[in-house]
Amino acid sequence: MSSTAGQVIRCRAAVAWEAGKPLVIEEVEVAPPQTNEVRVKILFTSLCHTDVYFWEAKGQNPLFPRIYGHEAGGIVESVGEGVTDLKPGDHVLPVFTGECKECAHCKSEESNMCDLLRINTDRGVMLNDGKSRFSINGRPIYHFVGTSTFSEYTVIHVGCLAKINPLAPLDKVCVLSCGISTGLGATLNVAKPAKGSTVAVFGLGAVGLAAAEGARIAGASRIIGVDLNSNRFKEAKKFGATEFVNPKDYNKPVQEVIAEMTNGGVDRSVECTGNIDAMISAFECVHDGWGVAVLVGVPHKDAVFKTHPMNLLNERTLKGTFFGNYKPRSDLPSVVEKYMSKVQ
Amino acid sequence: MSSTAGQVIRCRAAVAWEAGKPLVIEEVEVAPPQTNEVRVKILFTSLCHTDVYFWEAKGQNPLFPRIYGHEAGGIVESVGEGVTDLKPGDHVLPVFTGECKECAHCKSEESNMCDLLRINTDRGVMLNDGKSRFSINGRPIYHFVGTSTFSEYTVIHVGCLAKINPLAPLDKVCVLSCGISTGLGATLNVAKPAKGSTVAVFGLGAVGLAAAEGARIAGASRIIGVDLNSNRFKEAKKFGATEFVNPKDYNKPVQEVIAEMTNGGVDRSVECTGNIDAMISAFECVHDGWGVAVLVGVPHKDAVFKTHPMNLLNERTLKGTFFGNYKPRSDLPSVVEKYMSKVQ
Repeated sequence: MSSTAGQVIRCRAAVAWEAGKPLVIEEVEVAPPQTNEVRVKILFTSLCHTDVYFWEAKGQNPLFPRIYGHEAGGIVESVGEGVTDLKPGDHVLPVFTGECKECAHCKSEESNMCDLLRINTDRGVMLNDGKSRFSINGRPIYHFVGTSTFSEYTVIHVGCLAKINPLAPLDKVCVLSCGISTGLGATLNVAKPAKGSTVAVFGLGAVGLAAAEGARIAGASRIIGVDLNSNRFKEAKKFGATEFVNPKDYNKPVQEVIAEMTNGGVDRSVECTGNIDAMISAFECVHDGWGVAVLVGVPHKDAVFKTHPMNLLNERTLKGTFFGNYKPRSDLPSVVEKYMSKVQ
Repeated sequence: MSSTAGQVIRCRAAVAWEAGKPLVIEEVEVAPPQTNEVRVKILFTSLCHTDVYFWEAKGQNPLFPRIYGHEAGGIVESVGEGVTDLKPGDHVLPVFTGECKECAHCKSEESNMCDLLRINTDRGVMLNDGKSRFSINGRPIYHFVGTSTFSEYTVIHVGCLAKINPLAPLDKVCVLSCGISTGLGATLNVAKPAKGSTVAVFGLGAVGLAAAEGARIAGASRIIGVDLNSNRFKEAKKFGATEFVNPKDYNKPVQEVIAEMTNGGVDRSVECTGNIDAMISAFECVHDGWGVAVLVGVPHKDAVFKTHPMNLLNERTLKGTFFGNYKPRSDLPSVVEKYMSKVQ
C-alpha cells in the first residue's frame, strides 16, 4: 500500500477553465478511487488533436472547468474496491475508451465498442457515483473521456487501463494509447492487407503514418501516401510509404489517379483524415472484386457519405474502425510488446 | 460426335424484334461454335426479371432483334476448338457471367468478376469474332448476356458454362444459374452469419427467399423477412424466415424497428430489392461493433447510397456482391450438389 492510498492527493494539473482559453496549472485535489476505479500517477502525457478539439468546444456541449489529456503513461498509485487486475506499482496506459469484459461487445471477437465504457466525450464524471474525483477548494473539476491525464494524479475506471510491460519506456509508449494504435490497428486488424498487396493511406498525420507502418509490417509491396501537404511525404517514407500522391497536383479525382497507378485500384485503403471527400475517394480507389476501404477519421457531424451503389455491388467492401479495433485491456499490451521487440 | 457437329442447326427460338413487343417463335439458324465456344441444346429455361428489364429496354441501349434468356439447363451438342473442359453430352448450366480462370479476378479467392467474361448487357455478339451465331435468313439476331437460352440451341463461351452432375434434374436446377445462387451466395459466401445469429432479409422475391434459405442453412436463430407485400410472408416461412416486418405498418424507419426488435440491430442483413432506400435501411439496421450488410439488388443507375459516416466508424461493414460471389465454373456445380443432397 502506498502511503497516499485512501487519502485525497493534492497535486498539479493543467485546468481548462473556459473553452479556448489557455490551460492554467492549478493545485487540485484528487479523491481516492472508488469501486472499480484506479488512481494513477501520470508520468508522461502527450497532446492529441482531440484534446484541442474539445477544448475549443466549437459545436459540442461545453463542459468546464475540465482536465483534458488522454494519451499517457503512468503507474498505479492505489486501487478501489473490486479491482483485482491491477495493483499499486503496475505500469499502465490510460485509454479514452474501455473494456468491461462483460458486455456483448467485449464478448464479441469483432468489436471493441464496450457498452459500458465506450468513449463518451459529454460525460465529465465517474460512472460509479456520477461525480468528479477532481476538485479545487471543493469546486468539482470535470473529467475528460475518463482519463484526464493532464494531471499528476488522475482517477480512471479499471476498464480504461491497459497493464503493460514495466520495462516499456513510458515516455515513448504513452502515444500508443490513441492515434498510433488507431492507425496501426486500422491496417493490421481491419484492412488486413495480404503480403505483396497495394495499400493507399489517406492523410499522413500521426494516425496515417501508423496506418502506413501497419501496411509495411503486413508486407504490402506498394504503400501510396495521399496528402494535400507534400511536406509530409519525406517523413512518411520512414513509415513505409513507397509512393505519394498530392491530389492538388491533378485535374481529376484522386481515386482515378490511384486506379491508373494500380491497374484498377489498390487492394486496401485506409482513410485517416476525417474529411468526407477523402472518405469517398478512399472507398472508390479500391479495386473491384476484392478491395477493402477502412474509414478511421472522425467526420464533421453533418457529413454524409455518398457513393453510387454499383461501387459496392462490384464487390468492394467499406468498413469503419474505432481505435483500430483494439480492445484496450486485452490487446494494447501486445502493441507495446511489438514496440519493445523492435527497440530492444 | 453428334451428327450436327460442325453444321448450322435450324431450330426454334423466341425472338424479341422490338423493345417491349411480344416475343415471336421463329426458326433460327445457329452457327457451329468457334474457338472456346460450346453449342448447347437447351432443355429448360426460366424467366428472370432481368430478361424482362432488358426486353423493355427503358433507358438501356436497345439492341434488337435479340434472343433473351439466361436461367437454363441444357446438354452440350458440340464444342469449338480449344474446349477441353466440356464434351458433347455433358449437362451444363449457362451463366450470364463467366470465369476465364486466367485473369486477376479469377485468380483471386475473393472475386468472381472475371475481366474477360463479366456480365455485359450491351454486347450482343460473341467475343471470338464480334459476330452473332444466330441468324434468320442471313440477318443476325443478337445474343443476350452470352447465353440467349430462349432458343432450342444456343452458342455460349465455355467460360460461361458450369458442368454439373448429369443426375441433377435440369428442370429444377436451371434456376440455380442466376437468382437462387445470387441470394444463397450473398448469405453463405458474403454475409456469413454465425450459427445462432440474427439476419434480416430485405425483399422476399426469389433472390430474397434464397438469401433466407442461406441464413437457415447457416444456422441463424432469427431470420427477419422485410417486404412491403405481406402476402409474401407465408412463402418466406418455408425458406426459413422466422419473423416479418412490413415497413408500411410502422411510422418510423424500418431500421429503427429492427434495432428495437434485436437489441441494437441484426448481426447480418442482406438487401435483395435494388431499392436505394431499402439498401440504406439494410445497412443501418445492422448492429454496431460487428454488423455486416450485404447489398445484392441492382439499383437505378442514378441512385446514390447515402449514410452518416459514423454508422461506418461504429464498426459496421457494408459489402456488395455479384452472383453471390460464386465463380460460375468452379462453384456452381457444388450448389447443384447441395440441392441434390437434399432431395435424394
